[in-house]
Amino acid sequence: MTTVRARRTPTEMPLIAAATGAVPSRRPVWFMRQAGRSLPEYRAIRADRGMLESCFDADLVAEITMQPVRRHDTDAAILFSDIVVPLKAAGVDLDIVPGTGPVIASPVRTAADVAALDRLEPDQVGAVNAAIGRLLTELPSTVALIGFAGAPFTLASYLIEGGPSRTYENTKRMMLGDPELWHTLMGHLTDVTIAFLRAQIDAGVDAVQLFDSWAGTLSEASYEAFVAPHATRVMAEIEGYGVPRIHFGVGTGELLAAMTRVGTDVIGVDWRIPLDVAAERVGRDVAIQGNLDPTALLAGRDVVRRELTRIIDEGERAVAAGTPGHIVNLGHGVLPNTEADAITHAVELIHSL
Amino acid sequence: MTTVRARRTPTEMPLIAAATGAVPSRRPVWFMRQAGRSLPEYRAIRADRGMLESCFDADLVAEITMQPVRRHDTDAAILFSDIVVPLKAAGVDLDIVPGTGPVIASPVRTAADVAALDRLEPDQVGAVNAAIGRLLTELPSTVALIGFAGAPFTLASYLIEGGPSRTYENTKRMMLGDPELWHTLMGHLTDVTIAFLRAQIDAGVDAVQLFDSWAGTLSEASYEAFVAPHATRVMAEIEGYGVPRIHFGVGTGELLAAMTRVGTDVIGVDWRIPLDVAAERVGRDVAIQGNLDPTALLAGRDVVRRELTRIIDEGERAVAAGTPGHIVNLGHGVLPNTEADAITHAVELIHSL
Repeated sequence: MTTVRARRTPTEMPLIAAATGAVPSRRPVWFMRQAGRSLPEYRAIRADRGMLESCFDADLVAEITMQPVRRHDTDAAILFSDIVVPLKAAGVDLDIVPGTGPVIASPVRTAADVAALDRLEPDQVGAVNAAIGRLLTELPSTVALIGFAGAPFTLASYLIEGGPSRTYENTKRMMLGDPELWHTLMGHLTDVTIAFLRAQIDAGVDAVQLFDSWAGTLSEASYEAFVAPHATRVMAEIEGYGVPRIHFGVGTGELLAAMTRVGTDVIGVDWRIPLDVAAERVGRDVAIQGNLDPTALLAGRDVVRRELTRIIDEGERAVAAGTPGHIVNLGHGVLPNTEADAITHAVELIHSL
Repeated sequence: MTTVRARRTPTEMPLIAAATGAVPSRRPVWFMRQAGRSLPEYRAIRADRGMLESCFDADLVAEITMQPVRRHDTDAAILFSDIVVPLKAAGVDLDIVPGTGPVIASPVRTAADVAALDRLEPDQVGAVNAAIGRLLTELPSTVALIGFAGAPFTLASYLIEGGPSRTYENTKRMMLGDPELWHTLMGHLTDVTIAFLRAQIDAGVDAVQLFDSWAGTLSEASYEAFVAPHATRVMAEIEGYGVPRIHFGVGTGELLAAMTRVGTDVIGVDWRIPLDVAAERVGRDVAIQGNLDPTALLAGRDVVRRELTRIIDEGERAVAAGTPGHIVNLGHGVLPNTEADAITHAVELIHSL
């Protein structure tokens, strides 16, 4: 790490302490998708505004990002956004459709489609950068601000499929059948991801998370051949900024070691694998983040207490064995049906255990 | 195994030989969902008939089951059906909607819903049994006829969610939050599954596959606590019939050992984990089945040859290390967009390697 950011004091923040092998002042917790549909104040603010419109409005981004911090007392804020935001900013014709997710007007499947993609210029995400500036003045000094980006594979899957997929068949058809075109597309998306993360780091975020949400559809051999070189470039390009990097994908038990090897400070783990097993699998150079099944938050407080107690035990075992730290989180995003009070209660519990 | 079936000679069939530790006369291969949408002759026969209607018509079931055997020269036929067929037969109001999958009219979520479920009587699946009788006279003596059923967890997920799901949130809410109701429902579905498999075995199938397609959404601890006791009862109840049992779920890398411990003769493996690694994980008492990524069949013959060569090498390494046998298959079902010729070519290749 060649640069030390001085805007806020990283060691004050429990999340940054846990991510970097220091001792946090309390057990850090945040939740993927904590800013969003589970909060009544979010639903109110979004009642008459589209998702994408909201993601490009600095006031709204700052306000929605703050909401879960105010309500739940989490140890991090994660920017309210969507992983397709930098694609939209760079000119891809897409929308985020309620109940469906991102929908790409013209899926990217040919060499001409790939050649037509534009680079991302930092001023195209100016609203995100402006929101970060506001949040840095508003957030308590102990609460880390996390920026994020979709990893190239996951972005590629949306562009090629045209939206969410269960099979990723068009994505893998290009990946396996036309590796040259695949790597050209992935190289372009790697540039977009780097530009977007750099803009957020320059604006002052305290940590970044790279979401390779759907990489779990790949074998380790495919990940190594078709994805890892690009993820490695993303991680290498931001390493020098001195903000901790978190790497996460759902269903990636078989990929955790490979996703760690591309370069990360924290590896996110989903609920399918015990945290201490995950920590052993990835080695002792990276902190761990996770891994409550989001559905547990729908099942009542007794279930939440039982599951969190187990997870915290597993995290403590990993740290005792040499893992730098444990950040409590879910194994995937908050489900929209989650009661806001269930989240608040979980945070209290985590801070008390 | 207390009964030996004599209708056909099991050792003649390469699939049965590989499943039971004998030496097959050729490398056995079949494909999950081989009977279905990838075949023009299937689309022709289904043009004016609904899916469920077809599953309860013995002539159609027999004809559609034969189609891939005739066209591709596979080493097994798998009954054309759907895992919700026994639920429909037992009186659950459901349909199979094109592009969506099973849709349950009234999702099962309360004690009263569970109490209202009826048992499955063998004569309610008489069409399936009649189709099996026809197939046994029509199939070459070397081609195994595989019966199948959905495992209790996967059936429960459809009943509780009301259809396919990405989150299984209602399923897990009941499982974690109301274990008593959960186990009552699972006990009922275990009875249905056993009754359906027994009916198929009595009618003469040579092997059975238990599809716990969606178990991969669970941690091993949840699988052990909430699913394994029921899957164990299914497997124990059919063990005595002397037909090999295959157990499969997608994305189950972390569960393979647990899914083997419930009792099976063959474990199905998806493409996320190398076959030889899977074989080591489950021990040397069970044969392995898999594990071509179905998307590879869309990516051209060079890709198929490369991937199948690797898979067959991995299978041979496992067998050399003591695994009883390897049955070549996909890691999930044939994708509807697959060209029929790509499948035929893959079978030829597998038999030639």
